[in-house]
Amino acid sequence: MFKEKFRKGIISAKQFNREDLEYILKKAKEMMSIQNSNILQGKILATLFFEPSTRTRLSFESAMYRLGGKVIGFQSREVSSIKKGESLADTIRTVQNYCDCIVIRHSLEGAAKLASRFAKVPIINAGSGSGEHPTQALLDLFTIKEECGTIDGLNIGIMGDLKYGRTVHSLSVLLINFDVNIYFISPKELVMRDSDKDFLLSRQVKVKEIFDYRKVLDILDVLYMTRIQKERFIDPEEYEKMKNIYKFTEKDLELTKDNFILLHPLPRVTEISYNIDKYENKAKYFKQVYYGLQLRKALLAELLAD
Amino acid sequence: MFKEKFRKGIISAKQFNREDLEYILKKAKEMMSIQNSNILQGKILATLFFEPSTRTRLSFESAMYRLGGKVIGFQSREVSSIKKGESLADTIRTVQNYCDCIVIRHSLEGAAKLASRFAKVPIINAGSGSGEHPTQALLDLFTIKEECGTIDGLNIGIMGDLKYGRTVHSLSVLLINFDVNIYFISPKELVMRDSDKDFLLSRQVKVKEIFDYRKVLDILDVLYMTRIQKERFIDPEEYEKMKNIYKFTEKDLELTKDNFILLHPLPRVTEISYNIDKYENKAKYFKQVYYGLQLRKALLAELLAD
Amino acid sequence: MFKEKFRKGIISAKQFNREDLEYILKKAKEMMSIQNSNILQGKILATLFFEPSTRTRLSFESAMYRLGGKVIGFQSREVSSIKKGESLADTIRTVQNYCDCIVIRHSLEGAAKLASRFAKVPIINAGSGSGEHPTQALLDLFTIKEECGTIDGLNIGIMGDLKYGRTVHSLSVLLINFDVNIYFISPKELVMRDSDKDFLLSRQVKVKEIFDYRKVLDILDVLYMTRIQKERFIDPEEYEKMKNIYKFTEKDLELTKDNFILLHPLPRVTEISYNIDKYENKAKYFKQVYYGLQLRKALLAELLAD
Repeated sequence: MFKEKFRKGIISAKQFNREDLEYILKKAKEMMSIQNSNILQGKILATLFFEPSTRTRLSFESAMYRLGGKVIGFQSREVSSIKKGESLADTIRTVQNYCDCIVIRHSLEGAAKLASRFAKVPIINAGSGSGEHPTQALLDLFTIKEECGTIDGLNIGIMGDLKYGRTVHSLSVLLINFDVNIYFISPKELVMRDSDKDFLLSRQVKVKEIFDYRKVLDILDVLYMTRIQKERFIDPEEYEKMKNIYKFTEKDLELTKDNFILLHPLPRVTEISYNIDKYENKAKYFKQVYYGLQLRKALLAELLAD
Repeated sequence: MFKEKFRKGIISAKQFNREDLEYILKKAKEMMSIQNSNILQGKILATLFFEPSTRTRLSFESAMYRLGGKVIGFQSREVSSIKKGESLADTIRTVQNYCDCIVIRHSLEGAAKLASRFAKVPIINAGSGSGEHPTQALLDLFTIKEECGTIDGLNIGIMGDLKYGRTVHSLSVLLINFDVNIYFISPKELVMRDSDKDFLLSRQVKVKEIFDYRKVLDILDVLYMTRIQKERFIDPEEYEKMKNIYKFTEKDLELTKDNFILLHPLPRVTEISYNIDKYENKAKYFKQVYYGLQLRKALLAELLAD
Repeated sequence: MFKEKFRKGIISAKQFNREDLEYILKKAKEMMSIQNSNILQGKILATLFFEPSTRTRLSFESAMYRLGGKVIGFQSREVSSIKKGESLADTIRTVQNYCDCIVIRHSLEGAAKLASRFAKVPIINAGSGSGEHPTQALLDLFTIKEECGTIDGLNIGIMGDLKYGRTVHSLSVLLINFDVNIYFISPKELVMRDSDKDFLLSRQVKVKEIFDYRKVLDILDVLYMTRIQKERFIDPEEYEKMKNIYKFTEKDLELTKDNFILLHPLPRVTEISYNIDKYENKAKYFKQVYYGLQLRKALLAELLAD
């Protein structure tokens, strides 16, 4: 059922309804007790990373290996035939012959969607430009569910670069399936794009936009921080002005509720102070990485197991 | 027998006689019904790519995994010890300790041959400069055999960059083992080098050199197109003049015979129009990729299985 | 016991006492008769190479595969999240979720040590700056033991770049556990740093510093040569003056004892003439590569097997 619905792959957070989400989160939870398995024996995953990545690529590769599968791929566009002028469509039509599933990261929005039009095997979008990063959003949701016990009823702050941050776009889209209050926290230069906001509003999500996160710190259950992404800025001066606009410190942490959790898709640069790390009951961004592995194991198993 | 003859590896198309070719094409055909196998369990393939590649590297790696083997290697010279001044011979004498077979791509003609002089394990030439690319030629031949049912008696056009194109050199050499008419189609600046042509003529191959492919389109059974390879030109202006010299269009396709097939080693840039792709009974360049995987599975199995 | 002592990993040659060394060398010797095994089935090794490498990375990866394990990782800092400003500590805290052991190479001294502070899984130092390269030193020692039959009582020359060469630092530290005479041979600009020398002297090692290796060639049992490492020099002119300071030739070889062996961590550039290679009873630098694979198989087995 899940397999049938997602047979073309995981391209966008918009593909998921509440039932899909509850299903895949349950499967991810089951994966927490499966360290190694053979259910993907004989399957090959291709990881095509046109943009650098540590976490997402290694997470998918580890997930594949833990389930008995194998991995081929490339780690940068420099070593691929794109350098010789090949189109993405041609690359996909080629690589699908070598594998059972393709994970793709690309600097252009819409790249994964384009890929899925040409592929016979499922495509998993591992980040396309400033647009989407659905598997990151799924693991964020999984972390919230596991750590808070519920998603409905939560006050969730999403803070930082809401304009270019693809993880926040995808996470917001998943959250419309739940009864949550969302606080978008950003400088006015980096507010969520109208097209993204309109989508949320059309689905009756309770959204507030604010600049100063301290005003809501005492009511938040979850604060999801993001990095100001240097590589998305066209104007370096603009980046310099923005890069240190938010810094979450120990003082901030004192203002939060007992069961508050702080999330971050990583990598972080300066936006979360290193001395927050030791508060492991609230600082959950490394735990997120662990949940991410489980979630990706669940996705690969659902898409690829016979 | 095959294993014994090719125990030093696959360095040049010139190693193959008709019997070898018929044998390996039969083995490749058998591979079409073997999705996964364990015959190379415990074997390690090293893929040393000093030049970028998508297709060839991933094809070999997928082939190795489908047969139960494992893969180590590097994807660019930048990450290897060559950067520290190490000679190719030393790299080979090192890496052979870690593996059972080495696949090498290098920008210099003769690189694979040199490697095979120093290696105790078989070397497979995955492209050396403008010289040779024997496994590509084998898969081209396999495609022709499977799609046309025969090779003898065919009219085969080979078009584009005949001077720098290593795949056309290797394919031509294989074709001397068959009774074919070859049409070399290129601008005069990119005609086949005398040394290559002399070899063919010495073997009584029926060869014609022409410039305008339209003159023979109606009699060709196979047209093998190639990319004008930017990275081989010393003079960028020369490349600019040449790059769009041939563009195969729907209009051209109309002039071809019913059982005509169009091949290309890929990547293509502009030389085959994208709207040709939909004529899947004639446009066989993506099918070629599939045949390539089978052919490489067969080669690895023959060279490495106990 | 070994596993317990080295549960945080292999960070420095200083961790090893004589008993540890004898144990791991015995285990490495046992590995010489184990071509393939399943003792690391279900285990994943992460190889994080922030600096280029052929030998060390491929050696670890081959070792892991030969023992039934799997490998993830990256081959250069360019494809990692370090490029986005992530700290090494954060990278380690992330990657440890995906694997059972991390092999790290980094341009900064102390990188591996830092990594081990943050990791729950064992860290193996595969070279950190000009400081340490303990697994290379272990394989050097293993080569000496296997080729000379003993380590105690030998006259060992260590020659070349003693200032920046991390392998000579680590090897010297291991040798303090044996009754050997060490000759440090280098130009005065590249003598061993005082901090390293003081450590050796504090342990009563018999050390002499000389410039002209020919003065001791007739008494040496082992000569360990190293490359003058271009990438460690700040001043290119200094490198130009130093790079050809030593060249070991056939004439030199004639002056050596019958059971003399010549070692080199590789890559070599010009410091050992290529026509030495054929004297395989004395030129053991490629045999060293083979011993290195066995030693790394032993290390991985000891650290990771259940």
